[in-house]
Amino acid sequence: MSAAVSDNLLERRQRLIGRHAPLFYDEPLEIVRGEGVWLFDKAGRQYLDAYNNVVQCGHCHPHIVAALTHQAGQLNTHTRYLHSGIVDYVERLTALFDAPLDMAMLTCSGSEANELALRMARYTTGHQGIIVTDCTYHGNTEAVAELGTGLMPEAQHVERVAAIPVPDSFRLPSGATPDTLTHYYLQKVHDAIAELQARGMGVAGLLVCPIFANEGLVEPPPGFMEQAVAAVRKAGGLYIADEVQGGFGRTGDHWWSHQAYPVTPDIVTLGKPMGNGHPMAGVIASREHIEPFSEWATYFNTFAGNPVSCAVGTAVLDVIEDEQLMANAVAMGAYIREGLQTLQQRFPVIGDVRQKGLFFAVELVASRESQAPNAALTHDIVNHMCRKGVLISRIGVNNNILKMRPPLPLRRDHADLLLSQLESCFAELAGT
Amino acid sequence: MSAAVSDNLLERRQRLIGRHAPLFYDEPLEIVRGEGVWLFDKAGRQYLDAYNNVVQCGHCHPHIVAALTHQAGQLNTHTRYLHSGIVDYVERLTALFDAPLDMAMLTCSGSEANELALRMARYTTGHQGIIVTDCTYHGNTEAVAELGTGLMPEAQHVERVAAIPVPDSFRLPSGATPDTLTHYYLQKVHDAIAELQARGMGVAGLLVCPIFANEGLVEPPPGFMEQAVAAVRKAGGLYIADEVQGGFGRTGDHWWSHQAYPVTPDIVTLGKPMGNGHPMAGVIASREHIEPFSEWATYFNTFAGNPVSCAVGTAVLDVIEDEQLMANAVAMGAYIREGLQTLQQRFPVIGDVRQKGLFFAVELVASRESQAPNAALTHDIVNHMCRKGVLISRIGVNNNILKMRPPLPLRRDHADLLLSQLESCFAELAGT
Repeated sequence: MSAAVSDNLLERRQRLIGRHAPLFYDEPLEIVRGEGVWLFDKAGRQYLDAYNNVVQCGHCHPHIVAALTHQAGQLNTHTRYLHSGIVDYVERLTALFDAPLDMAMLTCSGSEANELALRMARYTTGHQGIIVTDCTYHGNTEAVAELGTGLMPEAQHVERVAAIPVPDSFRLPSGATPDTLTHYYLQKVHDAIAELQARGMGVAGLLVCPIFANEGLVEPPPGFMEQAVAAVRKAGGLYIADEVQGGFGRTGDHWWSHQAYPVTPDIVTLGKPMGNGHPMAGVIASREHIEPFSEWATYFNTFAGNPVSCAVGTAVLDVIEDEQLMANAVAMGAYIREGLQTLQQRFPVIGDVRQKGLFFAVELVASRESQAPNAALTHDIVNHMCRKGVLISRIGVNNNILKMRPPLPLRRDHADLLLSQLESCFAELAGT
Repeated sequence: MSAAVSDNLLERRQRLIGRHAPLFYDEPLEIVRGEGVWLFDKAGRQYLDAYNNVVQCGHCHPHIVAALTHQAGQLNTHTRYLHSGIVDYVERLTALFDAPLDMAMLTCSGSEANELALRMARYTTGHQGIIVTDCTYHGNTEAVAELGTGLMPEAQHVERVAAIPVPDSFRLPSGATPDTLTHYYLQKVHDAIAELQARGMGVAGLLVCPIFANEGLVEPPPGFMEQAVAAVRKAGGLYIADEVQGGFGRTGDHWWSHQAYPVTPDIVTLGKPMGNGHPMAGVIASREHIEPFSEWATYFNTFAGNPVSCAVGTAVLDVIEDEQLMANAVAMGAYIREGLQTLQQRFPVIGDVRQKGLFFAVELVASRESQAPNAALTHDIVNHMCRKGVLISRIGVNNNILKMRPPLPLRRDHADLLLSQLESCFAELAGT
């Protein structure tokens, strides 16, 4: 049997792309092959992938690989020539959105999509200020990184960004009760609006991931989203929904996670699963917002929306529809949630279980009473799960939330494996 | 014979991606297939592609398509797992650079690469100011678009950007002579440094395309580049070379166009031809610049440097080397330049012919004496060439420069076709 990691691979990697390029797990994996919900390391060991949401349709899906292969052999140019594949794809994609969202501008990455959304919102409104949640992440360019007020170094003291606390219904802020929670968080939005206006920035928009994925899938209190958006719009700003993680059927009930609320965004950004791994992303908005911006900015993106990307994007939509992956996300999501809730009854370190389709957040605490974040146990569970052959990760301001987002073709036997290995890990690391 | 453009395709495109999404030619082409240096429209008509530098190795190169297909069927994840394909590619790529450029951070687009270079330069130097040439273009994100002082709307009144005039040796600035030209342009660099320092921005770097591609392939006067870089470095700034257009052997003599000057950049950005159309790009720098930045910024890019992109990037290097495309760029570049110079002798509207490998700029003027830019004729030549089955474009502050950058596997018969059709166009549109 071959070694699990090639000789010197880690050292060579550190020399060539750096010691700080992020790498998963205490004992990094050398993954060499993927198929469906499975990843395989160099020694041939297989891992259940319960982490990678980019491969929404499963690793190396044959229909998607075939579409990529076919179009790459035909033509791969750009959008400065007419191409029916581009137009057909955008027509099919935009048809999945509610009115008035009827146009698209394509990009290569979620960062580029959020960049474009910010430029569009700032141009359209004539304002600069953006409201985000504290400690979130929307991408790696300067203008997007500065939104990561809790995480990114550029984000300190940025006049045009105001952060509101994550609208968390589990870990209540001091002084708030379940009854006053909506009011509490809405007041933070009003404060942010006033702050941006006082700084002379005005309000260009509220940019949030509707499922608050990076915040740990927190559940905002009832009525928060629509009232927050109403306040932002009243101040002249737009509602920008970042669907990079919540989109393309991840939540099961809807194509786009913002559709769970009774308010339609002005701008939507797409990314990760859009090409099942192929670099593609985009912005969806109405004609009213796209046309004036596009005229002003003369935006062009060399790679974005090329015929190969559009063929891949089309194949992704085919698979989500043909394999009924959204219905599967609903069914398997509910099944796993029940399993997690059963574990929660047994293990008091499980403080909260949250779920949207096939996206799970399991918040680990020192005790039910204190709700004190248990980052150390979270780290240990993630690494122990890896040793047991199941890939998950963690997230949240306090690094104490297990994050699980498997490819959508997850079947019941895969779900059972995930749950049984979690149960073993908790039993081994958290007693009883 | 089918129509050259599908019914309603232009109208559908305008409705779905907008009326301002850039489109080539007065009568847009519907391109459906590519092969080598050829593109084919819907009616089956073939066009010599003398424009698209993204497909450096030729359209749909079988070796590159095979590498894409193979790896897409094996694994397409990200850089948070170890993968030898990623490390092997970066090792091979960085080996093509001069010391001390020995590390890479990969991105999805040239815009992302320039974003990353700016963040790195600003962090490393502790300064904000960037010096660029007037009327250039380095990408579409906010921080990069603001460098386009002459073109991009955000770029007006940006405190941290200072523009110098394009160091043009053909169209001399008022008051300068060939003898004083180096001094004239260097003084502009010193002025920009002083201006940025007076604004409290300091100098983070000079960001230029070493072949001044978007400026019309202008030739800087002797000694300008190395003395400009020395002045910037003395002020604490870095030299950032944008090789998005000049790299990967385009200029024939060197892998990277900056190697034509006796000064090595601190940071190099790569893009367009890196994946022969597959969305990939990157930043090359020394350990001294990458490691501290990477630690500070915790940079991660979901799609960038994935195993498929690295397999494609490797295949591109294979083709450039195995097919000796750089030697071909030298030989065919010289051959076409001679042909263009012959045309210049016959047609006085050709004011200047400039060439670097297989990149050509032909500056059209009203007359030799006035050197007045002839934008109308340039527009007409580009469109007439398209009707004759050869694809070229135009560029420059005055839109009066024919831009030709064919795929590198251009053969002599292709070159002859390009030259003969140019000759016909000039004869038909510019007399004699």
